[in-house]
Amino acid sequence: MAEKYVEMWKTLDMDIEKHNQLLNGLGQYYTSAVLSQKNRPKKMDYFDFVVSEVHGLRIKELNDLRKAGKKVVGAFCIYAPEEIVYAADATMVGLCGGADFSVPDAEVVLPRSLCPLIKSFYGFKLNRTCPYFQSSDLVVGETTCDGKKKVYELLNKLVPTYVIEVPHKPDTQQGKEFWLKELKAFKAEIEKLTGKEITTEKLNQAIELINDKRRALRRLSDLRANSPAPISGLDGLLINQIGFMDDVRRFTVKVNDLCDELEQRVIDNEGVAKEDAPRLMISGSPMAVPNWKVHSIAEESGATVTVEESCVGTRYFTDLVEPKGTTMKDLLWAIDEKYSKIPCACFTPNDRRIDSIKQLAKQFKVDGVIYYTLQNCHDYNVEGVKVERALKAQDLPMLKIETDYAMGDSAQIKTRIEAFLEIIQGKREH
Amino acid sequence: MAEKYVEMWKTLDMDIEKHNQLLNGLGQYYTSAVLSQKNRPKKMDYFDFVVSEVHGLRIKELNDLRKAGKKVVGAFCIYAPEEIVYAADATMVGLCGGADFSVPDAEVVLPRSLCPLIKSFYGFKLNRTCPYFQSSDLVVGETTCDGKKKVYELLNKLVPTYVIEVPHKPDTQQGKEFWLKELKAFKAEIEKLTGKEITTEKLNQAIELINDKRRALRRLSDLRANSPAPISGLDGLLINQIGFMDDVRRFTVKVNDLCDELEQRVIDNEGVAKEDAPRLMISGSPMAVPNWKVHSIAEESGATVTVEESCVGTRYFTDLVEPKGTTMKDLLWAIDEKYSKIPCACFTPNDRRIDSIKQLAKQFKVDGVIYYTLQNCHDYNVEGVKVERALKAQDLPMLKIETDYAMGDSAQIKTRIEAFLEIIQGKREH
Repeated sequence: MAEKYVEMWKTLDMDIEKHNQLLNGLGQYYTSAVLSQKNRPKKMDYFDFVVSEVHGLRIKELNDLRKAGKKVVGAFCIYAPEEIVYAADATMVGLCGGADFSVPDAEVVLPRSLCPLIKSFYGFKLNRTCPYFQSSDLVVGETTCDGKKKVYELLNKLVPTYVIEVPHKPDTQQGKEFWLKELKAFKAEIEKLTGKEITTEKLNQAIELINDKRRALRRLSDLRANSPAPISGLDGLLINQIGFMDDVRRFTVKVNDLCDELEQRVIDNEGVAKEDAPRLMISGSPMAVPNWKVHSIAEESGATVTVEESCVGTRYFTDLVEPKGTTMKDLLWAIDEKYSKIPCACFTPNDRRIDSIKQLAKQFKVDGVIYYTLQNCHDYNVEGVKVERALKAQDLPMLKIETDYAMGDSAQIKTRIEAFLEIIQGKREH
Repeated sequence: MAEKYVEMWKTLDMDIEKHNQLLNGLGQYYTSAVLSQKNRPKKMDYFDFVVSEVHGLRIKELNDLRKAGKKVVGAFCIYAPEEIVYAADATMVGLCGGADFSVPDAEVVLPRSLCPLIKSFYGFKLNRTCPYFQSSDLVVGETTCDGKKKVYELLNKLVPTYVIEVPHKPDTQQGKEFWLKELKAFKAEIEKLTGKEITTEKLNQAIELINDKRRALRRLSDLRANSPAPISGLDGLLINQIGFMDDVRRFTVKVNDLCDELEQRVIDNEGVAKEDAPRLMISGSPMAVPNWKVHSIAEESGATVTVEESCVGTRYFTDLVEPKGTTMKDLLWAIDEKYSKIPCACFTPNDRRIDSIKQLAKQFKVDGVIYYTLQNCHDYNVEGVKVERALKAQDLPMLKIETDYAMGDSAQIKTRIEAFLEIIQGKREH
């Protein structure tokens, strides 16, 4: 890929040499972790292709859009209201933040005790190896956690960064009204950026566009509830991740194509693993590309991950934006309502998440939950105490893993997951 | 103290044996760190007495108030709007959260990677050795940081805990309006707790009561700007800390008495240290009793701490609540405005804090700044990057110390502070 796109990367002010190192590492990891899986659906070809061109063809597409006068908005969080961005003919992309590669560069500036996602994204901007960052006209941040909130201030020195405030008590009337005002302010910001007015018609179209994407991802997710699961958890996660980078319309079509194939698999009783493979939920902090560590280890150890209770998972697509009227206020209010239902651990109290985990455990017939926390992610880490109590009351085993992006603890995680699977096996035999 | 109050502590469901261990440790530490200081003002006698009775006589006072039908509200943060509490004839007290003593108990439940303050307070409630917790009818939390916000949910299982939401972008109109609504909701909560209506007259009186306390603390702080400083930084910090536990009216009188003595010291050119002692600001995370570690080490090493840019310091008393009218909305709006000006690192961006640090450095003639961060306190830790850049631009040396409540790193901190003082000395000689 490198030679073909090197001129484009230069125009984006990328560090070509360092970026080559990144691509080589990613390519090797993808081959060993993803491509090595057995019995993958044929339609994964498309997603493998997207990954192989994730810093190439997709970036060319974004740059072609920009040459045509459109804007690219980068984001890190599913609270960045993408419907508003698309309503102004702009495109939203998820920014790089899932690799250990950029962490040492970040640690020159940032405290080491921050979560790896934050260090990773700041490092990617500093070292100029993320073409999504380099193609973004604006970054949209949010106040979902202390670490991101404060690092956005530093990021703003490197790339224009607009921060939208998310209220933390989700169910108060004043919180919802406040969030509506923040949405209005964000709409004005996007109109300023793009020079385009966001009409009710445009916003309605954008809502439908993103709803279709969420529906496709939900369809895929629901298919994983079958036993045997027709697709691996790692491929499921990968598609959730790609959804933040790919062209929305094309991605939606391709996910539905894959679902057609998986439905046939279900009819044929064809799965990716043995029917009696322990079924796991992974619940917790978000996982950005190429954070495949825990899924990969769990499935190599004989489990199947059937659901991600995650921002890169159910939290993104469970609810749709459903306007109850046709005015701008109706549309924004519907966005307000949908986003307020995302059970992010930034909320207090966040009982909706506990309820969601219990419901998902049932729907996806899970035998156990891996509670996944990025190191020093206080919100998910502390909420794990409540989740553990709730699962214990349901006699559902939970394994808590707090880790970063480095591979140093892989062997230890593998040992712990293997022991966890033995506990599940033991429960089954009783 | 123990025998005299043991029956009272039993009625508060305290763990008597464990509490004795705590008191013994505290007493020894107070003797070695505080009482051993030379040339202390005479009027410190009162504050030494308060500390000696901090789990005794003061708790008896609170319990006498409760027997008389009044309520005690515990808090951890200067965003808990105490004016509203006092307007309902209730009393606000700061809860225990500054000692390593209770951290191991907390770590049985909480992640180790939380900040020591949070682990300490949760441990104090779990192990029942904080009589302020045991005397609180309600705890008021706030959403100033992820760790506290999420641990309040767990705390609520042990003691009724009401969480007030603080907006994080302090200067938007929608943020201020939202905060006003949160203040109104809090007022309703306190009226429910106490069964008393908060009238404009009562709220006005409470505002004046707390303003007087803030004025006294500001007077004390301003006196420390003199050279030589008439009082040690450790004693200054101690008084700021005691202000969260003592009776407000009496405390205000006693601080003013001390200020009278210090004014005479200034006239007599009498200081606690040599006139050429390096003058330091300590800026960063709050320091609850008995967190005296860094002040103690710095002053033992020959420096004088002349100002705390801290919630237990300037952030508490710099601004007053100044109503522009007499209606309830005027009064609440004045509270809104004052609290919004507290330059807490939870705000984004928080340029007001950078401005404040620069102004304080000038006013208190500091030769250097110790930037103090509680371990894993993301807000203050990341904001340190901006503070360091701002101070560098002013050619003011800064030393960053990230630490917890354990004493294991004291020798290392001492070495670092001594080296820092040498740098300051070197700059002076050039």
